[in-house]
Amino acid sequence: MAIENRTISDAFKSKALTAAPRGFRSFITNAGIKDTSLDLGVIVSEVPATAAAMFTKNQVKGNPVMVGMKHIRGGKVTALVVNSKNSNVATGKQGYADCLQVCKAVANELKIPVTQVFPSSTGVIGRPLPAGKIVSALKGLAGKLKADADFAGFANAIMTTDTFPKYAFRKIGKATLVGVAKGSGMIEPNMATMLSYFFTDAKLSAATLKKVLKSTADATFNSLSVDTDTSTSDTVMVMANGLAGSVSEKAFAKAFGEVATELTRMLARDGEGATKLFTVTVKNAATAAQAKAVGKSIINSPLVKTAIYRGDPNWGRIFMAVGKTPGVKINPHKITIRWGGKVYSNEQLAELSKYLQTNEELKLEVSLGLGKAAWTVYGCDFTEEYVAINAYYTT
Amino acid sequence: MAIENRTISDAFKSKALTAAPRGFRSFITNAGIKDTSLDLGVIVSEVPATAAAMFTKNQVKGNPVMVGMKHIRGGKVTALVVNSKNSNVATGKQGYADCLQVCKAVANELKIPVTQVFPSSTGVIGRPLPAGKIVSALKGLAGKLKADADFAGFANAIMTTDTFPKYAFRKIGKATLVGVAKGSGMIEPNMATMLSYFFTDAKLSAATLKKVLKSTADATFNSLSVDTDTSTSDTVMVMANGLAGSVSEKAFAKAFGEVATELTRMLARDGEGATKLFTVTVKNAATAAQAKAVGKSIINSPLVKTAIYRGDPNWGRIFMAVGKTPGVKINPHKITIRWGGKVYSNEQLAELSKYLQTNEELKLEVSLGLGKAAWTVYGCDFTEEYVAINAYYTT
Repeated sequence: MAIENRTISDAFKSKALTAAPRGFRSFITNAGIKDTSLDLGVIVSEVPATAAAMFTKNQVKGNPVMVGMKHIRGGKVTALVVNSKNSNVATGKQGYADCLQVCKAVANELKIPVTQVFPSSTGVIGRPLPAGKIVSALKGLAGKLKADADFAGFANAIMTTDTFPKYAFRKIGKATLVGVAKGSGMIEPNMATMLSYFFTDAKLSAATLKKVLKSTADATFNSLSVDTDTSTSDTVMVMANGLAGSVSEKAFAKAFGEVATELTRMLARDGEGATKLFTVTVKNAATAAQAKAVGKSIINSPLVKTAIYRGDPNWGRIFMAVGKTPGVKINPHKITIRWGGKVYSNEQLAELSKYLQTNEELKLEVSLGLGKAAWTVYGCDFTEEYVAINAYYTT
Repeated sequence: MAIENRTISDAFKSKALTAAPRGFRSFITNAGIKDTSLDLGVIVSEVPATAAAMFTKNQVKGNPVMVGMKHIRGGKVTALVVNSKNSNVATGKQGYADCLQVCKAVANELKIPVTQVFPSSTGVIGRPLPAGKIVSALKGLAGKLKADADFAGFANAIMTTDTFPKYAFRKIGKATLVGVAKGSGMIEPNMATMLSYFFTDAKLSAATLKKVLKSTADATFNSLSVDTDTSTSDTVMVMANGLAGSVSEKAFAKAFGEVATELTRMLARDGEGATKLFTVTVKNAATAAQAKAVGKSIINSPLVKTAIYRGDPNWGRIFMAVGKTPGVKINPHKITIRWGGKVYSNEQLAELSKYLQTNEELKLEVSLGLGKAAWTVYGCDFTEEYVAINAYYTT
């Protein structure tokens, strides 16, 4: 029942990684969790890295999220271990023990404290994690690690319904920052994202990492929605091993924001079944919170998302979505809608339809005429393919 | 691009109307608003009827909603005039004048005060209402009225993407209550519904009507969601002309609740592209509000709605939807999920898949294990057809 309407142009995909932070090693493999494709990835820092993380606000949290919340308290991470094909969520006490077993295997292989191992799992909910298979695959890990970490391969190993691996990087003086993300469906992160990891050889304090992570996540991952469903596994984590020395906080924050924005755009563009990236900027709002709420209401509206899919110039649906935003007082008469910077009249609907149909990135700007605040949110269109991906078999 | 998977069995459709309230007349016609199908319906009471109404909470409100809010203040309605094919929303001052022009035409034809005319419009947003065509079609209205109102025909005239007309009725002693509704997409009513009208010859005070309407709407129309989009035209209105004399408030409220529930089930079952009615009862919640919020989170989850469409026994998605409910404190370990009254284990997924695939009404029961409150909400599955209906042309 797959409908072949997804072609993601190279403009939206990851660029070749021409720089990488020092002191990270990697291991990727198939542990046989579900099939024979890559399903296990490990990133190890040569020295313990300062680390910070944010997690899903869904009250049903995966076991790796609960273990990760505990381990991150120490502020140090040396190894990250991630499997796909099974999320180890709603698997009870056995699931928690299974997650710890995997962490312990990594710790034993690398001779590091178990609390410096950060775990993540993504995939189906409610099935027992085959921890034994993962532990077997980790045997001899220290000897199998690739000296210059293969971040692109790691991005590939943690994909689920993603159609391409997602990573981005920036140089900050002598240091480098790499961000890796995965996610396609069950995406409306709340205070965190799907799985996103940042690795840098810059030297930064845990407090700085935390601050930069939080402020960046609000404007990027937390402004993204594919389908309004908040995953039980959302995690974003950053490791800074310090091997390239200190950098300015400002320069780091700028690079971090750029990498996070690139990843967010990739996640939206690769939303399950999506054919378009849909960015909505709400301007002239009374507050930033108001602008964000209105933006989210628009990118989450099934009627807006279906209209942009095939280019139905049904702008009334934007009005509807603005008006239904909960807890936001608006004035319908002051609303202005621009597509790609242009206001279209009822006489220009054919032209608007053409704009919607011929662009892979649709830029909607909604002015509320109430104040000076603005916010940008990231989404995608809604297609038959989304239904097909999620209806016909357990992903 | 239409996908033929919708067959709605007779069990979900309106039964033949074998009783009707006294003193109501009707007129239905094609006014040529968009094409040659029925697009205009009028219901007239022989005597002014006591009336009450509720409207959309969307801040962008249609002009008929604004006129209706004003006219209902008098507590009396003699004529209801409804057109489909154009909602007269986001049409500015001209749209308000157009709506008044239609009301005045009805008032002049019937020699009644214009404030006793209650208008509704449904259809595309943002296009000028062709008021002239409607006024022309209303010429000679008094002489064209059918003596025994054709409620089934009226239900047919106000449909948009509905696949069958929706009405239901109950006897209350010597009196009769008929409810008529329309709606298929852009449906998550907030304090009201799509267009729903109730007609009775029972004698009731305006205060009683209001009270019964509000308490019933909360448990029925306001517990319904097809696609999370709150229409700008939602209206529910009840007219009681008193010709059958007084009835007990309790008996009336019971009949009203039954008719509203029937209509709500029809609206959900006929959701755009839907192949199943999906009822979710949340039990053992701390409060009714909590039970309703969790229920809404489940019936609005695209991943739950796609899973039930083809019978993917992916019960983890129910957990995810419970956990993401905003503002509700739950305990994941106390949650129990029942489908059709039965708890399915991981060993019985094939059996669960069969339950999901072979039933036209799916009954999910979620126990939160926190208290004694319960609430039932009404929804449907999410199919390729919903996308097709809303993506390929302006409905």
